[in-house]
Amino acid sequence: MRSFGADTRLPTLAVVLDIIRERGAVSRVELADATGLTQATMTHAVRKLTALGLVHEVGTAPANRGTPRRLIGIREDACYMVGVQLDQFSAVGVVVDLAGRVVVRRDTPGSGMRPLASVVADLAELVRTVLDEASVPPHKVLGIGLATYGSQDREAGIVITPHPTAEWLGYPLAETLAAATGLPVALENDATAAGLGVQTAGGSGSSFAVVFMSGGIGGGVILDGHPYRGVTSNGVELGHISVDALGEPCACGNRGCLDPAAGPRVVVEQALEDPALAARLGLGADTLTDFNRIGRAAREGDAEAAALVAASAQRLAVATVSMVNMFDVGRVVLAGHAFAETGRAYRDVLQEVLHRSVYMRHVHTVEVDLAEDVTQAAAVGGAAVVLRNLLESPNPELRGVAADAEAGV
Amino acid sequence: MRSFGADTRLPTLAVVLDIIRERGAVSRVELADATGLTQATMTHAVRKLTALGLVHEVGTAPANRGTPRRLIGIREDACYMVGVQLDQFSAVGVVVDLAGRVVVRRDTPGSGMRPLASVVADLAELVRTVLDEASVPPHKVLGIGLATYGSQDREAGIVITPHPTAEWLGYPLAETLAAATGLPVALENDATAAGLGVQTAGGSGSSFAVVFMSGGIGGGVILDGHPYRGVTSNGVELGHISVDALGEPCACGNRGCLDPAAGPRVVVEQALEDPALAARLGLGADTLTDFNRIGRAAREGDAEAAALVAASAQRLAVATVSMVNMFDVGRVVLAGHAFAETGRAYRDVLQEVLHRSVYMRHVHTVEVDLAEDVTQAAAVGGAAVVLRNLLESPNPELRGVAADAEAGV
Repeated sequence: MRSFGADTRLPTLAVVLDIIRERGAVSRVELADATGLTQATMTHAVRKLTALGLVHEVGTAPANRGTPRRLIGIREDACYMVGVQLDQFSAVGVVVDLAGRVVVRRDTPGSGMRPLASVVADLAELVRTVLDEASVPPHKVLGIGLATYGSQDREAGIVITPHPTAEWLGYPLAETLAAATGLPVALENDATAAGLGVQTAGGSGSSFAVVFMSGGIGGGVILDGHPYRGVTSNGVELGHISVDALGEPCACGNRGCLDPAAGPRVVVEQALEDPALAARLGLGADTLTDFNRIGRAAREGDAEAAALVAASAQRLAVATVSMVNMFDVGRVVLAGHAFAETGRAYRDVLQEVLHRSVYMRHVHTVEVDLAEDVTQAAAVGGAAVVLRNLLESPNPELRGVAADAEAGV
Repeated sequence: MRSFGADTRLPTLAVVLDIIRERGAVSRVELADATGLTQATMTHAVRKLTALGLVHEVGTAPANRGTPRRLIGIREDACYMVGVQLDQFSAVGVVVDLAGRVVVRRDTPGSGMRPLASVVADLAELVRTVLDEASVPPHKVLGIGLATYGSQDREAGIVITPHPTAEWLGYPLAETLAAATGLPVALENDATAAGLGVQTAGGSGSSFAVVFMSGGIGGGVILDGHPYRGVTSNGVELGHISVDALGEPCACGNRGCLDPAAGPRVVVEQALEDPALAARLGLGADTLTDFNRIGRAAREGDAEAAALVAASAQRLAVATVSMVNMFDVGRVVLAGHAFAETGRAYRDVLQEVLHRSVYMRHVHTVEVDLAEDVTQAAAVGGAAVVLRNLLESPNPELRGVAADAEAGV
């Protein structure tokens, strides 16, 4: 059966809402121009978004002829979404308003190797904390978007990876967190979420690839404002494309994968092999903390630390060329905690290599950006997923939000 | 600007027509079920396809209650499309009817290193030959779909690759062939065309990846019946993903690319390094002919030839895992002249490696098929592109075809 469901590249309400948010105050005519849709279709979309309580008229602009054009804007405080990014080494919780602004952010330790019941309890506490601090009315909170790594059954909210422990192979993470918080939970791949977070922050256009590096390396692709999904939303596993076809078997099943060749773990392992370097940099914490210490030292001029980062960046750059040769995008955005100290160094290497190496460079260039806040993009994208999933459902309803809008609250 | 043009995954007329063709005789209700579309939308699509002269009522089927359902079928001889596949070593021309049947096929030598004016003259002669032999009324011939390799400006019909000669970097191949034949010409990537050809032949579903190997290695992805396009239709360059990040610089700009590590050219080079093997196999023709001689010898038990094919297959398999990890598809189809003798050998290696190595194997399996006719799929897909482009244009018109339909011809 052919399916034209949530992962098609249709001009959904979510995309129209994104454009209204980006532009601030926009007429239906401008919206139709920006999407290539008919005015009738756009009028229908705006009517639906108005009925949901998400947009309203914010004024008028003079037209070339005839009546002035009515301008549409976001009802910025109409509703709020919680976004959580989780991996082994970090967890970030944010509350985001409808304008895409981060109202509150809190960071906590990642999952480590702990039992998932304990991890979920901590995530629930993180959600309570950010919601308390945001002090938004409970009926305005639409739900939680949880961005994490590995294979997933996204619709069922189940993680399907043997890492870091066997308990993750089939664990109903969304359902369990929903039970612990009383809020609906949507699961999303962290790199894809980072792409949606970058889109929320604006400025990188509507089609780009994401190189996501935190505990490991992941990838995401956004096309015309929609995440690339493939058949089960488990694509763009950048960390597990082979960069050495005759190389070592990887735990994932493939050989010579990028992540064990260039990811934070191997960079830290290499640094630890040099006791003088390890002592100088104060290594011995977790992988991500150590990696960021190496990155900071590299930035401050430590030649050995810089050599380790440069070797990783070269391999990542070659793999990024492969990703671009696969997905044909004109922009690559870097996000994830591992770019907190090294973002510019990786960006410069990737930009140089992409400019001279992508296959379609005779057709177009490929630019490399850093996400506005590399440590926050995936959590913000998690929040975006909550609204997106609601708007992509067949008959979206946001009762409390719509009632507020009608009452002018 | 966001665009929702021809490369969106909308349920286009082309997809509806594909389903009608696959099923033979189908009711509007079945069509709506098969696509997840509303019956109103499907009724509109069927009305449009009927007005274009492409489908008609072919009978009725009893319904559970109420009036019998009217069945829709393809008007098989309503129109014909010419498909041409071209690379350095081979050219195939076909005439295909609306049912997807190959009416005529002719093979000629590829472009070699010849000036493009001479190549185009030969292609025009090939087109005349297949149309003469098919002896179909000229007004029923919709155009030519030309499938070839390398970067392209697909919309402008321009090839943009420095191979095999600098003349290919910006040559208006579609326009020149159109002028030489008097028929409209659509340009398409050969691996993507092979995917559309596989879809025309049926049986591999509507979402799969293509590994295309002829003079070189290429890739294609079909999702929900539509080719993956990226931003400029230049993605899925499987031959130029790196399988050795620290390897030799490739002519394409990347390092350690798959094509020079595993493609027909290197297999032939390796065979030629062994004079006894080269003599035994009668090598010394062009790359593709020699490769197929090696492949036939491998199949017939020559151990040295088999070892060369096996080494190539292992590298191709690892790269195919990377492609699947990127695009998340459940099926891979092999097509292209280089699989004529070796198809089963490559398929067996790829299947074994994919079963144990794809990242999302805890979520779903990935099956490997050979195209029904590996040497013909891209040409048939070229023919499919002609109709597809017409149906994806804003207001498709097929005057002669529609007039025939109205006159009951």
